[in-house]
Amino acid sequence: MAEFDLINRYFQVGQTPQSVKLDKGDDCALVVPNLQLNNTSLAITTDTLVCGTHFLPDIQAHALAFRALATNLSDLASMGAQPKWFSLALCLPKEISQNESWLSEFSRGLFELANQHKFHLIGGDTTSGPLSITINAIGEVDHQKALKRSGAQVGDKIFVSGTLGDAAGALEFLLNKAKPKSEQIKQDLMRRFDYPTARIELGLGLVGLANSAIDISDGLLADLSHILKASNVGASIELSQLPCSAALTEQFFEKQARKLAATGGDDYELCFTVSSEKVSAIHKLSKQLNIPLTCIGEILSETRLEVTENNQAVQYSQTGYQHFA
Amino acid sequence: MAEFDLINRYFQVGQTPQSVKLDKGDDCALVVPNLQLNNTSLAITTDTLVCGTHFLPDIQAHALAFRALATNLSDLASMGAQPKWFSLALCLPKEISQNESWLSEFSRGLFELANQHKFHLIGGDTTSGPLSITINAIGEVDHQKALKRSGAQVGDKIFVSGTLGDAAGALEFLLNKAKPKSEQIKQDLMRRFDYPTARIELGLGLVGLANSAIDISDGLLADLSHILKASNVGASIELSQLPCSAALTEQFFEKQARKLAATGGDDYELCFTVSSEKVSAIHKLSKQLNIPLTCIGEILSETRLEVTENNQAVQYSQTGYQHFA
Repeated sequence: MAEFDLINRYFQVGQTPQSVKLDKGDDCALVVPNLQLNNTSLAITTDTLVCGTHFLPDIQAHALAFRALATNLSDLASMGAQPKWFSLALCLPKEISQNESWLSEFSRGLFELANQHKFHLIGGDTTSGPLSITINAIGEVDHQKALKRSGAQVGDKIFVSGTLGDAAGALEFLLNKAKPKSEQIKQDLMRRFDYPTARIELGLGLVGLANSAIDISDGLLADLSHILKASNVGASIELSQLPCSAALTEQFFEKQARKLAATGGDDYELCFTVSSEKVSAIHKLSKQLNIPLTCIGEILSETRLEVTENNQAVQYSQTGYQHFA
Repeated sequence: MAEFDLINRYFQVGQTPQSVKLDKGDDCALVVPNLQLNNTSLAITTDTLVCGTHFLPDIQAHALAFRALATNLSDLASMGAQPKWFSLALCLPKEISQNESWLSEFSRGLFELANQHKFHLIGGDTTSGPLSITINAIGEVDHQKALKRSGAQVGDKIFVSGTLGDAAGALEFLLNKAKPKSEQIKQDLMRRFDYPTARIELGLGLVGLANSAIDISDGLLADLSHILKASNVGASIELSQLPCSAALTEQFFEKQARKLAATGGDDYELCFTVSSEKVSAIHKLSKQLNIPLTCIGEILSETRLEVTENNQAVQYSQTGYQHFA
């Protein structure tokens, strides 16, 4: 299949929204931002998934596409931005570029998630080479209200969404470091690894409520540290408060489950801070969106991260994943 | 070197322009489009260069960065857009991520070109894996005046900028298909391959003048065919009119030089069409910008591309490069 046929067959999906004045098929796409926003700004992010680094070669194409898009949507979510348009740079080995079932599953996974958020593919590049996926995502947000890492205030309560550590638990299976205790546990954790939930609605709901936010991609301790550094504050968190799924706790028991929840990446839940007087609004938002939001600690003035487990100080040598480290 | 050190050391260059409300270092960058444009639109494009597909492993890091950015700028040029912001997704093998001279040369090449066009790096992703560079480029253009592929009109004159085939000539050396006749010829052609000129000023100058435009990345015949297809027209072009550099003609003689000019990619010159009454304005623009602009043919109503050489019909079996073909 030639490059243009491949694009036409698998990536020309859905209707072109009004904001897109020129779609795929020219040198550039042309899009028109929503000028009705008070302080219109574009939130722009890029994430790459590389075979062998971010996923294993035998990953399902459907999950791979979903995950590649979800990681980018998650960055928009953590700014409180409304997803608008994305570009896809797909580098494919020859054998995959000829594999129609792989391509059609990839396309299905991509548009399944994109359509949920009215997120429109405006173009990209298809090249031959080692398998990797780079997505550039653009959203809209009032830049005076965007959820930045730098806004945490002393006294803020620290919250996380959903449950943590599930994707890290799945990785233990994938790397043969643990054996699933049941098929159900395996499925529950693998699903969280393959199909992370980008917390778009939560991000939008937090605009005007949260003082700072980040998505947990490298691990809670690592990502919370980014907030602390950017805000020039410290924090204390209590590990027994970390929300862990039943599957994670059953598989790894409490202690190891908490460790995975504190240091494992790839969950793409949000970590955010809010002032005390807005805590009740957070509980209301949690009910409204049907997303667990759990308070795990507090922002302090002393610029260090204090971790306790049942009120005993805990030391972690590694706080998360870093490329090239 | 860890990921964050690498970004801080090599990719935090230059002052943040006013349009950038939040720069590198958060989940997203926040940028504000220029709302003074009449019909503000964003021109967005993505191009990937993969080692072994688009460049050879021994390419100089300075040239690689320059070329990766130039190919994206060229897409903005061919829409008549003003470059604004770009993201960089850099996938590096471990040995390169530790090679400080490679990284600093890459950084130098990138910002040398970016600064020429006040093109601001707003973020990206750094991952470990096989060497590839994906850039997402954003520019601004009035969407009613943007230079599209679909605007060519019957009777339009077809122009190309600069000289064609030089990069294809250099590729003959790189692939050991030809031996340079002199060091000067080698340098002249290699420079065009390594450091393509993105015709930004020309693209801006063509807004309001040209009916259609494209940049020549896959080869003149292939790229002109995209204009013809999008505009539902045909064309005749005369090969003896193709502008070839002295170096190309001296190395390959006239016939082979013309073939390279007609089918070779990677020159990143612009091909555009203008109505007859605007031809004199094109000559004026050529003088003003000091860029050769050469008429090579005409748009016809019959939807085929007629190629002649000294008025004799010519057949080409291959019209340009296609991935996966």
